[in-house]
Amino acid sequence: MSSHQDRLDFALDLARQAGQFALGHFRAIDTLAIESKGHQDLVSNADRDTETLVRDAIAARFPDDGIVGEEHGRVHGTSGFDWVIDPIDGTANFVRGIPQWCVALACAQDGEPVVGVIYEPASGEMFSALRGGGAFVNGKPMRASTAASLTEGSVMVGVSGRTDPKVAVALVEAIVSQGGMFFRNASGALGLAYAASGRLLGYVEEHMNSWDCLAGLLMVEEAGGATLPIDPGTALDHGTRVVAGGAAIYPALSAIAEHAFPPR
Amino acid sequence: MSSHQDRLDFALDLARQAGQFALGHFRAIDTLAIESKGHQDLVSNADRDTETLVRDAIAARFPDDGIVGEEHGRVHGTSGFDWVIDPIDGTANFVRGIPQWCVALACAQDGEPVVGVIYEPASGEMFSALRGGGAFVNGKPMRASTAASLTEGSVMVGVSGRTDPKVAVALVEAIVSQGGMFFRNASGALGLAYAASGRLLGYVEEHMNSWDCLAGLLMVEEAGGATLPIDPGTALDHGTRVVAGGAAIYPALSAIAEHAFPPR
Repeated sequence: MSSHQDRLDFALDLARQAGQFALGHFRAIDTLAIESKGHQDLVSNADRDTETLVRDAIAARFPDDGIVGEEHGRVHGTSGFDWVIDPIDGTANFVRGIPQWCVALACAQDGEPVVGVIYEPASGEMFSALRGGGAFVNGKPMRASTAASLTEGSVMVGVSGRTDPKVAVALVEAIVSQGGMFFRNASGALGLAYAASGRLLGYVEEHMNSWDCLAGLLMVEEAGGATLPIDPGTALDHGTRVVAGGAAIYPALSAIAEHAFPPR
Repeated sequence: MSSHQDRLDFALDLARQAGQFALGHFRAIDTLAIESKGHQDLVSNADRDTETLVRDAIAARFPDDGIVGEEHGRVHGTSGFDWVIDPIDGTANFVRGIPQWCVALACAQDGEPVVGVIYEPASGEMFSALRGGGAFVNGKPMRASTAASLTEGSVMVGVSGRTDPKVAVALVEAIVSQGGMFFRNASGALGLAYAASGRLLGYVEEHMNSWDCLAGLLMVEEAGGATLPIDPGTALDHGTRVVAGGAAIYPALSAIAEHAFPPR
């Protein structure tokens, strides 16, 4: 078994295990008022404990691999592989009781993603990709959209509290002024998985952290879509601009990004 | 058993039955390429057959009630009750394979909703409300948000292909310029259910058809939230402007609508 396939199989098991673990917390949290102290404690525990579960499993199975994630410090490895982990992507949804959140795991070799897994416990959907091995949702091949016009579907806009309000408005304006439609379900990883599966035309965000986007970017590429290339020397630690979607619509997505985002 | 409670119990059963029926279609559709003729036929069949199931069940159980829906003509009743039905709300999601769609059923008496049910098959969440009897999600009481600031959560923006692009942009601008965040998951009924459960601060849309909003509006009211009053004489047949959310945030939602929408 190749080192890539081995890591994909491991990631599939781990994402499901972490997702079910977090889902248990999610259901408990949902019984408490959002404003209560108990609610906030449970959310913090869920985040921390799920990340610990993921990190411990990686360290036990692949002790020479590095780990990059939001909550804890960077673990530098010696194998050339780095795990890029978001144990709960869509935290704002998780916190509020909205079931659209997921576990996102990628493994990069020399800075380039080779394995990507996104698991949404509420729907039971498991999205995965292996560099050179295709992209799948619950075992079925994924294909990015073949649409060539923005009028044929929706584009996920990556907007967060970090986004300049003017950029958010420019992004929406660039889409709707061309007869397109925007989508924002507040989970970046799920948005990219939807772009890979052709459910959305594509995804555009000024800046994403590596743990939010690397798994999904690999999926879009392996599903026959197009993505703005990442810089493997900096993306893991500093994130990247994200433009991703069907190959025929990619030029239009790229133009939206050029219109809405300041020059890099 | 009161005529309202009777109709709520009936609607709960019917929504679950229709949702499971549509879910079977959804899973079959998801195995076909979105651009294929077979895909389009299956979507049309799913929509039509689910609506037929709902209409037949209502006609059999409450033959003197009226029925209002998107696809077929208006059925005028003699009981004073009208069923306002959206067998698949979030059709754009359904068509594309995105699991966020739902069955929305309301029953109005003399034009005012007295029963509302929204069922999302993918997550298994059943939202319900009875006039004067509270609002529930999977049996648990719902409470609209108590937040007083737009910075404390997200607002669903109701935007569709019918929306003037300038209005869509103004709506997003009004929210993000105040430090708020927008959400758009492309199912209006689910968005209102999320507003009723406090998962979102609220919901704003220039115009919704009655079958998309009546169930959710009742839920927001019964969950302690505030809504722009509907005109019972016209809402069933001609729809209404929708502003709904937590009571403390309602003035801010109302100001957003005033800013973004042309005067009525």
